[in-house]
Amino acid sequence: MTIDVLRRLLRVLIGKPLETKEIPHQSISKVVGLAVFASDALSSTAYATEEILVILVLAGTGALALSFPIAIAIALLLIIVTLSYEQTIHAYPGGGGAYIVARDNLGELPAQVAGAALLTDYVLTVAVSISNGVAQMASAFPLLLPYRTALAVLMIALMMFLNLRGVRESGRAFAIPTYFFLAMAFSTVALGLFRAATGSLGTVADVEALHVETLHNLSLFLILRAFSSGCTALTGIEAISNGITAFKEPRSRNAGVTLLWMSAILTTLFVSITFLANQVHSVPSESETVISQISRTVYGGEGLPYLLMVGATTVILIMAANTSFAGFPRLGALAAADGFLPRQLTARGSRLVFSRGIVTLAFFAGLMVVIFRAETSALIPLYAIGVFLSFTLSQAGMAIRFGRVGRLKPGQEVRTKDTTLAYDPRWRGKQMLSAFGAVVTGLVMIVFAVTKFAQGAWVVVVLIPALVFVFFRIHQHYQEVATQLSLDRPTRPRSVQRHRVIIPIANVHQGVLEALQYARSLSSDVTAVHVAIDLDEGKAVREKWERWGDGTRLVVIDSPFRDTIGPLIDYIERIEEQLGPYDILTIVMPYFVPARWWHTFLHNQTALAIRLAFLFRKSTVVADVPYRLSD
Amino acid sequence: MTIDVLRRLLRVLIGKPLETKEIPHQSISKVVGLAVFASDALSSTAYATEEILVILVLAGTGALALSFPIAIAIALLLIIVTLSYEQTIHAYPGGGGAYIVARDNLGELPAQVAGAALLTDYVLTVAVSISNGVAQMASAFPLLLPYRTALAVLMIALMMFLNLRGVRESGRAFAIPTYFFLAMAFSTVALGLFRAATGSLGTVADVEALHVETLHNLSLFLILRAFSSGCTALTGIEAISNGITAFKEPRSRNAGVTLLWMSAILTTLFVSITFLANQVHSVPSESETVISQISRTVYGGEGLPYLLMVGATTVILIMAANTSFAGFPRLGALAAADGFLPRQLTARGSRLVFSRGIVTLAFFAGLMVVIFRAETSALIPLYAIGVFLSFTLSQAGMAIRFGRVGRLKPGQEVRTKDTTLAYDPRWRGKQMLSAFGAVVTGLVMIVFAVTKFAQGAWVVVVLIPALVFVFFRIHQHYQEVATQLSLDRPTRPRSVQRHRVIIPIANVHQGVLEALQYARSLSSDVTAVHVAIDLDEGKAVREKWERWGDGTRLVVIDSPFRDTIGPLIDYIERIEEQLGPYDILTIVMPYFVPARWWHTFLHNQTALAIRLAFLFRKSTVVADVPYRLSD
Repeated sequence: MTIDVLRRLLRVLIGKPLETKEIPHQSISKVVGLAVFASDALSSTAYATEEILVILVLAGTGALALSFPIAIAIALLLIIVTLSYEQTIHAYPGGGGAYIVARDNLGELPAQVAGAALLTDYVLTVAVSISNGVAQMASAFPLLLPYRTALAVLMIALMMFLNLRGVRESGRAFAIPTYFFLAMAFSTVALGLFRAATGSLGTVADVEALHVETLHNLSLFLILRAFSSGCTALTGIEAISNGITAFKEPRSRNAGVTLLWMSAILTTLFVSITFLANQVHSVPSESETVISQISRTVYGGEGLPYLLMVGATTVILIMAANTSFAGFPRLGALAAADGFLPRQLTARGSRLVFSRGIVTLAFFAGLMVVIFRAETSALIPLYAIGVFLSFTLSQAGMAIRFGRVGRLKPGQEVRTKDTTLAYDPRWRGKQMLSAFGAVVTGLVMIVFAVTKFAQGAWVVVVLIPALVFVFFRIHQHYQEVATQLSLDRPTRPRSVQRHRVIIPIANVHQGVLEALQYARSLSSDVTAVHVAIDLDEGKAVREKWERWGDGTRLVVIDSPFRDTIGPLIDYIERIEEQLGPYDILTIVMPYFVPARWWHTFLHNQTALAIRLAFLFRKSTVVADVPYRLSD
Repeated sequence: MTIDVLRRLLRVLIGKPLETKEIPHQSISKVVGLAVFASDALSSTAYATEEILVILVLAGTGALALSFPIAIAIALLLIIVTLSYEQTIHAYPGGGGAYIVARDNLGELPAQVAGAALLTDYVLTVAVSISNGVAQMASAFPLLLPYRTALAVLMIALMMFLNLRGVRESGRAFAIPTYFFLAMAFSTVALGLFRAATGSLGTVADVEALHVETLHNLSLFLILRAFSSGCTALTGIEAISNGITAFKEPRSRNAGVTLLWMSAILTTLFVSITFLANQVHSVPSESETVISQISRTVYGGEGLPYLLMVGATTVILIMAANTSFAGFPRLGALAAADGFLPRQLTARGSRLVFSRGIVTLAFFAGLMVVIFRAETSALIPLYAIGVFLSFTLSQAGMAIRFGRVGRLKPGQEVRTKDTTLAYDPRWRGKQMLSAFGAVVTGLVMIVFAVTKFAQGAWVVVVLIPALVFVFFRIHQHYQEVATQLSLDRPTRPRSVQRHRVIIPIANVHQGVLEALQYARSLSSDVTAVHVAIDLDEGKAVREKWERWGDGTRLVVIDSPFRDTIGPLIDYIERIEEQLGPYDILTIVMPYFVPARWWHTFLHNQTALAIRLAFLFRKSTVVADVPYRLSD
């Protein structure tokens, strides 16, 4: 019926079910690994520079030149975080995301804080990347401008369905767009730098600059705000540490090398793009991205190379959003397995992906896009706090871990929940690096929260503790249920002495008589109950029952207020109170199974209403006896 | 819980339940009766003239003068219909709406056609009256103009709640606004006519006339279109024939006199308003109603008298909508009792009103208002076809009836379903009048359908037959069900030979063991079934069961596609096929009753999903055994 139609429709959209044994096991090379895991990190070059400019322009276009030193500072930060994560990859060869590192070294609370931070940021990665991808498209094709929100929502829906089908991370599919983007980005940057060196690079023309209401002073606060915005360039560099098991052996080594390569590329691109933005006098604009402005100037017009560059940027942004569709459900399943999220998130859907996590992510990302009308700059103040919080926790965890390593004797090994601690003579230096990273990223997070607080960061500052609170409430509930269901305490034996059966009837007809026969097969102690809305009706039912009721007791309850359910429930509650400890009570409920779905609306759904009332209120057994109407 | 909260909220909105014996019985005088039943008919004077002008202006403002002869023609039609209905009132002292007259004289099909036509027009009466009422308000307070749709929807919602509370038609509450309107309308008309006679009546100024794209020729077709629009003045004159029982004895006489009074007032007002509209050179406008234009000119400005007149018009329009809130649910209950509409419509809600009919009317009227953006002129082409169709059927029925009367001998009486036929020497004249009325209103209906077809009348032309088709499908269903449930055919006796019990389990815990004890109290033939998503899980359940299952048979089904419901249903279907004619099968379903509503989302609702699958697909008895989790 209707449910079946839905199910079939879903099967067409999502594909036929896969067997559990088909869970993919892959092992990829460094070259492919870079393509698979780098898109999130590299894609931030599409907006990081622009977001610095958006803040600086508040102090006038003269302040835009400050973007270059800010970019250099961010590049230094990036190097510190990279080196620290390289250590994590070696310590957690089974996958070392912030959640696992925090859980293993810092305890439950920090782990859940990291989880909340990461889940929030996965949602924002999708919202920011898709919004910016749509903005890139709209830069090349301005007629798309008014439909940005709708386009972004459509794209998220599309990605949801693709991911529900299960995107096989076959590497090659990812390699093509990533390397295409790298080729285009480096060509554009190289040509731009060459033209700048030879003095042939012009400045950008025809940009409708962002309107600034009142000019601010160029305060330290504003510079720190610009710096925070630029720090979005660091989002995504933790991706490799989650996916170490996907690499060929030696896994940690290969993953580590890939991380270093990725960071080097990211740093080069980010700094170069910021440099070029200054050279061409890029200005932040509502209708054209900085990437589009630079490309247009470097290529001297909107020809094919320009379109390829903007297209490649759009594609890498979409790929970046896609990595969240892998990361969010996986982390959700991990936290759910630990009992901090609804357990349903651990179930693999028909295509072996964590379907519920995918749908949840798409829903919240879509919500963000709608609320913020797909404007990247409006989303940025919410973004990256989570990432930096998880950086801080992860590196603090690593620092603690190296401290424990330092207490080991040479050759000694200790098992933790997730890994093995082994003696390492260079532990002190590594600890210093992790601790330094933790402090720096922690400071950046605070700068971020303070400078962006009024613009939207407060949402995240409120949201993360709220999420953590909810996670612990969920955990507490699961623990209580486990205790109650535990078989450690003895089950009370219940030898039934009396089985009472109540059968509510609305009328006397074939369906009711079938249900009555069933009731009498359960017990000889059967009571039929009729709630009479008016006196005549009650009398009619009583008369029919005398003829057809086969001697079964009938109770007629008058209901002057015409409510059939309330008086019935009151009656059953009275019976329940009289039950002895060894008595059981069953409500036998006759109901129609209509032949066609629309017939449902032609009958009083009193049976259903009574069922619902008992489903949530009572501890009574209800046996539904269907009477199937033929067509 | 949540359902209780809703229930309590509704009680606050609607009031405490009333006992069945409190169904009101009233008897009202002619003066009050006029107030109660006239608002629908009189309110049409607020827009009928304007709707004539809206059409005529298509041929240029010169054509507007034609509105007066058109109004005279409509007045004649009104007199014919009134005289015919006066006869109906005497023939059907128990209430003689078109549905009853058609059912009694013409048969089932015409009765259902009349029913569909009337129900459609009740919806449109609400939509048109409220839309026009809002337009009157906006004429006086133009700042309301942009919010017309929202205001109209809000008003419909408000009327729905008032009527769900049960408006006591106490007469006096109705008398005040109706007589206030009459006083204001007659004062305005009298002053206007006096000033016109003395030559001191000016013409209206500052009206933003309706923009006409291309001028039409003043064709016969256009004149007939204008005539059809004006015929909306006749809507509502059938109201008294539905409410005869509310009058004091002699009921028919009192009701008949009231009808004649009402028609006289209506004719006078409609013709005078049309005359004055011509005198002041009223032009149809988007932003100001003709009533407002006339009042403004008659009173020489927008002072208190002007505001009182526009206010009175608004109030009478709202009262008119309110009569539909009495008529629609009553007719719905009548048709439902005959088995042509869902039977639920016959049930009186907690406040003794037919709540479901009220909600249905509000929903569809609100929908119309939203679709047509509360524009009276856009709704008019849909309106009045239904009324004229019901006029035609009612009068045709009366003509048939008088034919039957004519075949009686003096003193002879014959019972029909609804009334008694008695010999009447003047039957021929009465029959001629009814037949003439039927032909004239039938012609007007055809003119209406043809001239307004493209503007929206086609919707009604399609809708009414579609509704009639649905009514008969519903009727057929109820008849089939009645046959199947009938106790005339013998019940097959079923002495149970074997009672098989299946208990699906997801795990082994306290809740499952309680359900198992219940299952074993039903029968010794119990099989536990577990669907295993992976091998380890299946093994774990099997081991636990060996310890705790008390020797009960356990079947473990492997599910490589991780679907728990499908394999279980397949298994149960196989068992069902093996059942002998005297065997019965019960599924004992353990399920959790969460302590807090939000806990529901933390557990797999597999039990619920299985329940739903069986609710619509199977003829198996399912007994739900709850396990209540404490807080």
